[in-house]
Amino acid sequence: MAVYTEIADEEVAGFAAQYDIGTVIACKGIAEGIENTNYLLVTERGTFILTLYEKRVKVEDLPFFLGLMEHLARRGLPCPTPVSGRDGQTLRTLAGRAAAIVTFLSGMWPRHPTAGHCAGLGEAMARMHLAAADFAGRRDNDLSVGGWRPLYEAIARRGHGMAIELARELEEELAALEGGWPRALPCGIIHADLFPDNVFFSGGRLSGIIDFYFACRDFLAYDLAVCLNAWCFEPDGSFNVTKARRLVQAYRAVRELTPDELDALPVLARGAAMRFLLTRLYDWLNTPKTALVTPKNPTEYLQKMRFHRGVRGFGGYGLD
Amino acid sequence: MAVYTEIADEEVAGFAAQYDIGTVIACKGIAEGIENTNYLLVTERGTFILTLYEKRVKVEDLPFFLGLMEHLARRGLPCPTPVSGRDGQTLRTLAGRAAAIVTFLSGMWPRHPTAGHCAGLGEAMARMHLAAADFAGRRDNDLSVGGWRPLYEAIARRGHGMAIELARELEEELAALEGGWPRALPCGIIHADLFPDNVFFSGGRLSGIIDFYFACRDFLAYDLAVCLNAWCFEPDGSFNVTKARRLVQAYRAVRELTPDELDALPVLARGAAMRFLLTRLYDWLNTPKTALVTPKNPTEYLQKMRFHRGVRGFGGYGLD
Repeated sequence: MAVYTEIADEEVAGFAAQYDIGTVIACKGIAEGIENTNYLLVTERGTFILTLYEKRVKVEDLPFFLGLMEHLARRGLPCPTPVSGRDGQTLRTLAGRAAAIVTFLSGMWPRHPTAGHCAGLGEAMARMHLAAADFAGRRDNDLSVGGWRPLYEAIARRGHGMAIELARELEEELAALEGGWPRALPCGIIHADLFPDNVFFSGGRLSGIIDFYFACRDFLAYDLAVCLNAWCFEPDGSFNVTKARRLVQAYRAVRELTPDELDALPVLARGAAMRFLLTRLYDWLNTPKTALVTPKNPTEYLQKMRFHRGVRGFGGYGLD
Repeated sequence: MAVYTEIADEEVAGFAAQYDIGTVIACKGIAEGIENTNYLLVTERGTFILTLYEKRVKVEDLPFFLGLMEHLARRGLPCPTPVSGRDGQTLRTLAGRAAAIVTFLSGMWPRHPTAGHCAGLGEAMARMHLAAADFAGRRDNDLSVGGWRPLYEAIARRGHGMAIELARELEEELAALEGGWPRALPCGIIHADLFPDNVFFSGGRLSGIIDFYFACRDFLAYDLAVCLNAWCFEPDGSFNVTKARRLVQAYRAVRELTPDELDALPVLARGAAMRFLLTRLYDWLNTPKTALVTPKNPTEYLQKMRFHRGVRGFGGYGLD
């Protein structure tokens, strides 16, 4: 939620001159995306987003991310389209960082998601999965089941931060997930981070999906599991079946889920909860308590993980 | 440089509906202004700035600030114009804070100010002083000479943070400023915080002056003194006479300085350095060292204060 890299006015003007987007009218650092530096770039020709990639994003992954956005936008998905410079390139360097200009999307992300938002999300996610099917790029999910134990161990080494009961619970859950993780489900490119702040709505309709910087190849249904966690729990921790039903129904109306995918939803949702619980625990332990950027509370995802552990099969959600 | 107050999409839509500015297309928190929360508000009719006033600004001062901007904009000065709602009001409440919508100004603030920027600034500042002459609002400068000693004492009470030599130097300087501060110079409304990040340029021409939230009644030449400090020193601490000359000449071409004002410039510049030195020291001592927002280094203003102390009269700057 902060501008990490300051850029000078003359640097922006020089950078924009490499594109066919007109003269720069204004350039404001925006509080969007916590991994990268984002500027809203207003030119004579329109409004764009200028992104400087900070250390959390690997430079070698950028052609995958930019290529994917280009591919999806060409298929009609409302996602940022990388803008090519006069040299045909979308990726260049600014202020010592990899940088790109993408198109601006209207809309705002929903601070209080409704069942209607969940339906819009389900439909767009399924369309995204279908549209990405013939994308040639390849990137594995380094935050899937194989990545959780190393992350857990890095957290546990700072053991004074974790209660013994929590450590035991996480270890048991990790073992259960490693043993019970599905081996063969329909795979494809997933977004992997479809939280409400990455989805814009305008006048009640989905108008944009942003922040593809965790996109990777994984089980398609895992994307749905991430969204069950991120969109269908109320602030008090209760699971909103109406929202979940709208999300899943809207998805299935575009891309039907196989019986195996439906059966796997509870374990995928437990895994998705584990993934965000672990990265939040890691950030929690590694951010000074006095810092102005408050890391997200990991407890929320512990509660979600426990909820899914109690669900038996797809029917257990009450979604049938 | 951070969004302090989060606002929900439905709150923004409801707020904007009280104005005749069309439907909201997007609303992004921007890293502009460190005292308030600022959103860039894009609607069907154009682009605006939505400001939520945080605790540093006194709510009772807001009618003065908004009234001044309205007055100056009407006189043709490129400053944000408060937008009235359908009820004729410019000030209302959003997310528990006083809030206003103002017009958007093009341009970027100069990260590396040149002599040309200083000339543009001098001219616009003089025009602002003249344009504000018939503004009826009244607000005293609580950060002028009378306010420095209480601020210094609040800092000194946290004495472990200050070397004994620095304490002695500040006390001597305070006494000298209190004794030698001018009593009768031309007064009027000044901006009082005309740092480069509050002045926009577009294509080399000044396109906007923003952030009037320190504006007050004081000696007009004090505004010039603040700018001598903020615009005419190089990063290595050296005083750039060329920039100072362009600043002062451009000012005098619009509003001539009296002999008393010229004589007073060194003491006003020492005072202006003291004011920013003290508020920076205060912020430095009261911000946790690990915070992500780094307070500005006070040392810079100590050096500027020492420089002006060595200057005898206006001629001592080499500006004649």
